[in-house]
Amino acid sequence: MKEIRVGMVGYKFMGKAHSLAYRNVPFFFPGSATPVLKAIAGRNEEGVKQAADELGFETYETDWRKLIERDDIDLIDIVTPNNSHAEIAIAAAEAGKHVICEKPLALNVEQAERMLEAVTRNKVIHMISHNYRFAPAVQYAKKLIQQGRLGRIYHVRATYLQDWIMDPDFPIAWRLKKEVTGSGALGDIGAHIIDLTRFLVGEISEVVGAMETFIKERPIEGEAGKKGQVDVDDAASFIAKFENGAMGVFEATRFAAGNRNRNSFEINAEFGSIKWDLENMNNLHVYLTEDDKGLQGFRVINCTEEEHPYAHAYWPAGHIIGYEHTFVNLISELMKAITNNEHKQPNFHDGLQNQLILEAIERSSKEKKWISIAKKIEQLS
Amino acid sequence: MKEIRVGMVGYKFMGKAHSLAYRNVPFFFPGSATPVLKAIAGRNEEGVKQAADELGFETYETDWRKLIERDDIDLIDIVTPNNSHAEIAIAAAEAGKHVICEKPLALNVEQAERMLEAVTRNKVIHMISHNYRFAPAVQYAKKLIQQGRLGRIYHVRATYLQDWIMDPDFPIAWRLKKEVTGSGALGDIGAHIIDLTRFLVGEISEVVGAMETFIKERPIEGEAGKKGQVDVDDAASFIAKFENGAMGVFEATRFAAGNRNRNSFEINAEFGSIKWDLENMNNLHVYLTEDDKGLQGFRVINCTEEEHPYAHAYWPAGHIIGYEHTFVNLISELMKAITNNEHKQPNFHDGLQNQLILEAIERSSKEKKWISIAKKIEQLS
Amino acid sequence: MKEIRVGMVGYKFMGKAHSLAYRNVPFFFPGSATPVLKAIAGRNEEGVKQAADELGFETYETDWRKLIERDDIDLIDIVTPNNSHAEIAIAAAEAGKHVICEKPLALNVEQAERMLEAVTRNKVIHMISHNYRFAPAVQYAKKLIQQGRLGRIYHVRATYLQDWIMDPDFPIAWRLKKEVTGSGALGDIGAHIIDLTRFLVGEISEVVGAMETFIKERPIEGEAGKKGQVDVDDAASFIAKFENGAMGVFEATRFAAGNRNRNSFEINAEFGSIKWDLENMNNLHVYLTEDDKGLQGFRVINCTEEEHPYAHAYWPAGHIIGYEHTFVNLISELMKAITNNEHKQPNFHDGLQNQLILEAIERSSKEKKWISIAKKIEQLS
Amino acid sequence: MKEIRVGMVGYKFMGKAHSLAYRNVPFFFPGSATPVLKAIAGRNEEGVKQAADELGFETYETDWRKLIERDDIDLIDIVTPNNSHAEIAIAAAEAGKHVICEKPLALNVEQAERMLEAVTRNKVIHMISHNYRFAPAVQYAKKLIQQGRLGRIYHVRATYLQDWIMDPDFPIAWRLKKEVTGSGALGDIGAHIIDLTRFLVGEISEVVGAMETFIKERPIEGEAGKKGQVDVDDAASFIAKFENGAMGVFEATRFAAGNRNRNSFEINAEFGSIKWDLENMNNLHVYLTEDDKGLQGFRVINCTEEEHPYAHAYWPAGHIIGYEHTFVNLISELMKAITNNEHKQPNFHDGLQNQLILEAIERSSKEKKWISIAKKIEQLS
Repeated sequence: MKEIRVGMVGYKFMGKAHSLAYRNVPFFFPGSATPVLKAIAGRNEEGVKQAADELGFETYETDWRKLIERDDIDLIDIVTPNNSHAEIAIAAAEAGKHVICEKPLALNVEQAERMLEAVTRNKVIHMISHNYRFAPAVQYAKKLIQQGRLGRIYHVRATYLQDWIMDPDFPIAWRLKKEVTGSGALGDIGAHIIDLTRFLVGEISEVVGAMETFIKERPIEGEAGKKGQVDVDDAASFIAKFENGAMGVFEATRFAAGNRNRNSFEINAEFGSIKWDLENMNNLHVYLTEDDKGLQGFRVINCTEEEHPYAHAYWPAGHIIGYEHTFVNLISELMKAITNNEHKQPNFHDGLQNQLILEAIERSSKEKKWISIAKKIEQLS
Repeated sequence: MKEIRVGMVGYKFMGKAHSLAYRNVPFFFPGSATPVLKAIAGRNEEGVKQAADELGFETYETDWRKLIERDDIDLIDIVTPNNSHAEIAIAAAEAGKHVICEKPLALNVEQAERMLEAVTRNKVIHMISHNYRFAPAVQYAKKLIQQGRLGRIYHVRATYLQDWIMDPDFPIAWRLKKEVTGSGALGDIGAHIIDLTRFLVGEISEVVGAMETFIKERPIEGEAGKKGQVDVDDAASFIAKFENGAMGVFEATRFAAGNRNRNSFEINAEFGSIKWDLENMNNLHVYLTEDDKGLQGFRVINCTEEEHPYAHAYWPAGHIIGYEHTFVNLISELMKAITNNEHKQPNFHDGLQNQLILEAIERSSKEKKWISIAKKIEQLS
Repeated sequence: MKEIRVGMVGYKFMGKAHSLAYRNVPFFFPGSATPVLKAIAGRNEEGVKQAADELGFETYETDWRKLIERDDIDLIDIVTPNNSHAEIAIAAAEAGKHVICEKPLALNVEQAERMLEAVTRNKVIHMISHNYRFAPAVQYAKKLIQQGRLGRIYHVRATYLQDWIMDPDFPIAWRLKKEVTGSGALGDIGAHIIDLTRFLVGEISEVVGAMETFIKERPIEGEAGKKGQVDVDDAASFIAKFENGAMGVFEATRFAAGNRNRNSFEINAEFGSIKWDLENMNNLHVYLTEDDKGLQGFRVINCTEEEHPYAHAYWPAGHIIGYEHTFVNLISELMKAITNNEHKQPNFHDGLQNQLILEAIERSSKEKKWISIAKKIEQLS
Repeated sequence: MKEIRVGMVGYKFMGKAHSLAYRNVPFFFPGSATPVLKAIAGRNEEGVKQAADELGFETYETDWRKLIERDDIDLIDIVTPNNSHAEIAIAAAEAGKHVICEKPLALNVEQAERMLEAVTRNKVIHMISHNYRFAPAVQYAKKLIQQGRLGRIYHVRATYLQDWIMDPDFPIAWRLKKEVTGSGALGDIGAHIIDLTRFLVGEISEVVGAMETFIKERPIEGEAGKKGQVDVDDAASFIAKFENGAMGVFEATRFAAGNRNRNSFEINAEFGSIKWDLENMNNLHVYLTEDDKGLQGFRVINCTEEEHPYAHAYWPAGHIIGYEHTFVNLISELMKAITNNEHKQPNFHDGLQNQLILEAIERSSKEKKWISIAKKIEQLS
C-alpha cells in the first residue's frame, strides 16, 4: 500500500482533528493509502515538540519553510490562522507538494486567486477542509438531491450558531482580529454553511446581508486592564439567491446563547424537505410528499446504515459516529485523490468561490444593497 | 335536531371537562344531537350553584337521587369520586336513564359487575369516559392497526407518569384514600393505559406486577399537625401477556419528577412501530418497515389532516387541538349512540374488563406471582 | 354581568375560530363580559344562513351595511378578505361600534392610516386579530423578557412555513390575488411573525428582503382549462434591524414541504434564549446562562402551569390546549377592553405599524436595498 | 511511559471496537500507558491474519492457548462468543495475565464464579466490557446522583430495543444458539441495561420477568432449506426491586421495529429526573425540581463540556463524540488500573452480580414468580 508523507503547519484544535483523521484512516478505510505523520511545524519549539509527541508526528520544525523544503514530505496540511494560508499554500505548491488548507481559504479573494493559480500551475492535488460535507447524513442528503428525490429546490435556511464569546470579558483572541482572521463569525463559521449549501443546493448568484459587532470593545489578551476595539463581526445574516432559483437565508453568529455549535440547514423542495444539525449529526430528517396522505411527516433517520455514505466504514446501525469522523472521511478522499491523481471536492476552486461570496456579503453589509457574485469555479476534470 | 338532556353528578375537574364537551359538540359536529345541560347535582349547595352557573347548567340539585328522579333528564353523567359510581349508575339505569361514568368504573369487580348487569337489563346506553382513545392520533393508530399496516404486534410499552404528590407535605386527599378511590395511581391513571392498550393491542390474559407507596404517612387535610397512613399505591408497575401473544410493560406513577402528565405508549409490530404521548398529543410517530432502505425512520405525523379521525371537525392541518377535544369526540360518539340506540365503546363492558385487570394486578402484587384474567367482555350487538 | 353583542362580517375559517372563542370565553373566563352572537353578515344568503346556524348566531344579514346600522350590535368583527377591511372597519367606527379586524389590517398603509384615524376619532375600542400573541408559551416568553431574565436581545429568527399551494394545479384562490389580498405569503403569514417579533423584541427600524413567486401561472378556479398569472408572492425572506440593536431574520413561505403551519421563533439574548413553534404551541424552550455549568441546556417547558399566562383558565398541568384557545384568550382581552373602556394590544396602531413594515419589505424587494421604517405607533393611554 | 502489551482473542465486531480504543487511547489521553497491539488469536488462519493486518496487531496465533503462553503479553482481551469466556479468562489469570472480557461474563453463574475466583486468586486486574457506563452523559448522570442532586431514587425504566432479527428468514446465527450464547436478547443487551442501572441506581434485590421467542423456527445458516428451533429468547421484560427501594422496569428485545439500538433509561428521583438514550448518546435530559416554578422542564444537555466526565479528552463543546469513544474511555481506565495496580469497575464482580440477575430472570420466567437475588459483589479495596 502506498504511503503518503504528511507535513503539518500549525497544531491547535484543527491540528488535533486532522492528525487523528490521518491516524485512523487506514483503520476505517483498509484499502486506503497510509498517511505517515512525518513532521509538524510551529514557531514555538516547546509547543511544537509537545504537539509532535501528542499528535504522533515523527519530527518537528520551527520554520514552516523548512518543512516545505524537506523531500520526505508529500502533502502539506495547513491548520494555521487565516493570514498565513496564502503564503504557505503557494510555497507548498511551488515545491510540488499536495496541499490541504483549513477554511476560509484566505483573507480575501485576491489571495485565494493566487493560491488557486499556484496549485493549478504546479499540478498538485488541493483540498479545503470543509469537513461537514462528509457527515454521512449530509452526504446522504446530497445523494437524495442528486437522485432527484427532492426535485426543484425552493428554499434553504442555514444557521451556524455559537455562543462562546458572549461574555464581554472574553478577550480579543486571534479569531477576533481582522488582520489575522479576515472576518469574524462570517469567515469562520459562515464559510461552512456557505460551503454546505453550495454543495447541496448549487451556486449563489447574489446576496444581501448585515454584519454586526455587538461588543465593540474587549480586554486585550495579556495586557491587564487594557481594552481594544473589536474589528470583526460577531454575527452575520444574509439572504441569497441561487442560480437555480432557490432562496436562501443564512445566519452565522457567536451570540446565540445555548447554541454551542448549531450548524444546521433545512432544504424545502418540490417533492420533499430535509433537515440536519451538527449537534445531532447522525440524524437526517426527511419529508417526502410521495408518502401516503395521513402518513406524511418528517422521518428521523439515523444515518448509520449501509445505504448511508461512509457508514459502512464504521459500526452497525444505531451505533453513532462523531465530529471527528467528518475529518476521517474527508482525509480518506484526499488519500484517494493523491493516490489516483484525480481532483476531489471541496478544493481551492470551492475555496475561492466561497471567498467571493464572503467578500460580497461584506460589501453588501457596507453598501446596504444586493451584490452579484461572479462564478469562478470550473468543472474539474 | 334531537335534544339530549343531561344531568351531571359531581362538578370538579371532570365536571368541567365533560360540560365543555357537551357545550361544544354541536359546534364541532353540526349534525349531532344537541346536549342540553339540564341539571347538576352536588351535596354542597353553594358549590353546586356556582358550578351550575359556571358550567352552564340550567338548574341544580343537592341530592343526586332527585336528579335521577327528574323526568326531564335523558342521560346521567357521573363525575364523582369512585366510591359512589356504582350506586349512582345502578340507580340511573333503573330509572331508565342512559349513563356515562368516569373511570375507573367502580371500586372493585363485584361493583362493576352489578353496574353492567343493571345497564344491560335496563337496556340503556352506557359508556365509560376513557377519553384518550379519542385523540385523533390514537384513533389513527387504531386505524393503521386495523388496516393491517403494522401486522402482528410484539410489544407494547405504556406509561402514565405524573408527579403531583411527590412533596411529602402533600396531604391525604380523596384520591389518596382507598375507601373513596379503590386504589391510587393504579386505578386513576393505570386504568387509562390499560384501556388504551386493550383498545389498540387486544385483550390481556395475565399480569404480574408490583405496587409501591413511597411516602407512607402524610398530613391529613384539614387537621393541622396530624398525619395519617396512606393506604393506596403511589406507583404500580406490571408486565402483561396479551391473548394475541404480545408482551406489555406498564407503569403508572405519581412519582416521576418532571412528568406532569406523560400518558404514552409505543407499539412494536411486524411491519412497523408507533409512538404517542399525551403531552404532545397531536403527534403520532410512525415507523414502517416497507419504507426504502436508507429512508427508514420514525415519522412525526401531526394528526390534524383529513385522513386523521375527528380532525375534519376542527381546523386546517397544522392547527392543533388540545386535551379537551378528546372529550368532545367522546361525547359526539355518545350522542350518536343515544340517537341511534346503538352501543359504542368504551362502555361498561370495557369498564368491567379493566376492573378485572386492576384487581389481578393488585392480587399479583400481594401474592407475588402471575395472575390470569378471565375474559368477561362480550361482543356488543 | 355585562353582555356584549357581536356582529360578524364573513364566516369562513376565521369566522369559525372567532365564533368559538366568543362561545367559550364565559366558560373559561367566568368573570368576563358575555358575548352574544347577535348577527352575521355575508353576501350569499344560503351560505350565511347556514353559517349563522352552525356558528350560533341569532340572525343574519346579506349586507354588512345593514349589520352596522343595527342598534343591537356593540362590536363588529371583521373576518372578510383583506380588500374589504378598510371600508367595513371605518363604517363600523363611524357608527360607534367597537371593532376587531383580521390581519393584515388593510391592503396598504394608506388604508390602514384611515382605519386608525376612524377608530381613534370615534373613540371606539379596536383590536387586530394577531392571535398567536396569546398562546400561553408566547405570553410567558414576553414575561421573561419584560422581567429582564433574558437581558439585551441580539437575535431573532422567525419563520412561518406552510406548504398548501405547492401543487402547480392548485388554483388561483382569493388568497392568491393581489387585488383581494394585497400580498401573498408576506401579508398572510409574514404579518404574524412581524407581529410576534414586534411584541417580543421591539420595533423594527429597517428591512431588506426578497419576494418570490415560484409558480407563476396557475389554473383559474371555476374556469376549466384556463390559466392565470399569479400576482402575489409565494415566499418572502427578509432581514431586519431593530431599534434596540437586535438583528432579525424572517421567512414566510407557502413552499416549505412538510411544514403545514410552522410558525416559529428563536430569540437569543444576553442571559439566555427561547424557542417556540406553533405546531407544538404549548412548549417553550428556554435556555438560561445562569444555570450551573454542566447543567446548561434548553429546557422544554410545557406551559400549562399556574405561572404561565392564561393557563389557569384551562386544565391541570400537562393537559394541553390548542390553536383555538389563542382566540379565546384574545377575545377575553377584547371583552375586558370594551367593559373597562381601555385599549389593549394588538390594535389598529399595531396593524398600521405592521403594514408599514410589509410595505417596506415590498419596496425593498423591488428596489433591492434596505428601507427604513417610520415609527407610527403611539403609546396608548 | 509504560507500555502494556495486548493479546486479543477474537476479532469480529467487538474486536474492531476494542482495537480502535487501544489505538486511540494515547492520542486522547496523553498521560496514559501505551497499549501495544502484540498479537491476536483466532482459529481461522486467513481470517485472523487479515484481522491482525486491519486492526493493527503485530502478530497472530491460531490457538488462543499459545497467545496466553507468550511472555510478551500483559493483558488478554476476550472478544469471543460467550461460551469460551470462562475457559480463556481462567487460563489467562492462571498465566498471570490481566484480563478484560466482553459481556455477559459467562454462560451461567457457576462459570462466572470460577472466573472471579481465578482472577482474584491470581491477583490480576480484571474488567468487563460494559462500555456504556463510559459515555460522558452516563458518567455525568452518575456524578449528579452521587452529589445528591437527585435525592432518593423512586423509578428507573430502561430499555434496550433492537430490530435486527425480525425477518423470519434471518438464520440461526451464533447469537441465536443457547449453547454458544447462554441466552438471547436477555444476556446480549439485557445485561447492558442491568449494568447501567446497577451503576446508577444500586443493587437489585428481586426480579420477576417474562421471556419470549416470537419466531420459534428459523433457517439454519449454511444448510439450505433446513430449519431449526430457536432456543433463546427474542425478548425479555422484567420488573425489579432495588435494595434502596427503587422500582425498575426493563425490556430487552430484538423485535422493536425501527429501534436499531435504543439503549435508554429514565430515572425519577426525589429532586429530579434524568433521561438518556444511546442513539443520541451525547445528550442527557435533566429535570430539577429546584428550578423556578414556571421554568421547570427537561433540559437537553449536550455533554461535551468541561464539566462532563471524559469530555475534556475530545473536542470543544458541541462537537459530539460517538459509540467508539465509550470504549476509548473504558480502555483508558483499564490502562490506569494496570499501571497503578488498582481495581476499577466494572469488573468480574460486576459480571458475576449481573449473571446472578440474568439467571434469576430466567428462573422467574420459568417459575412465573418473583426471585430474590443474593448479593455477591464485594467492595473492592
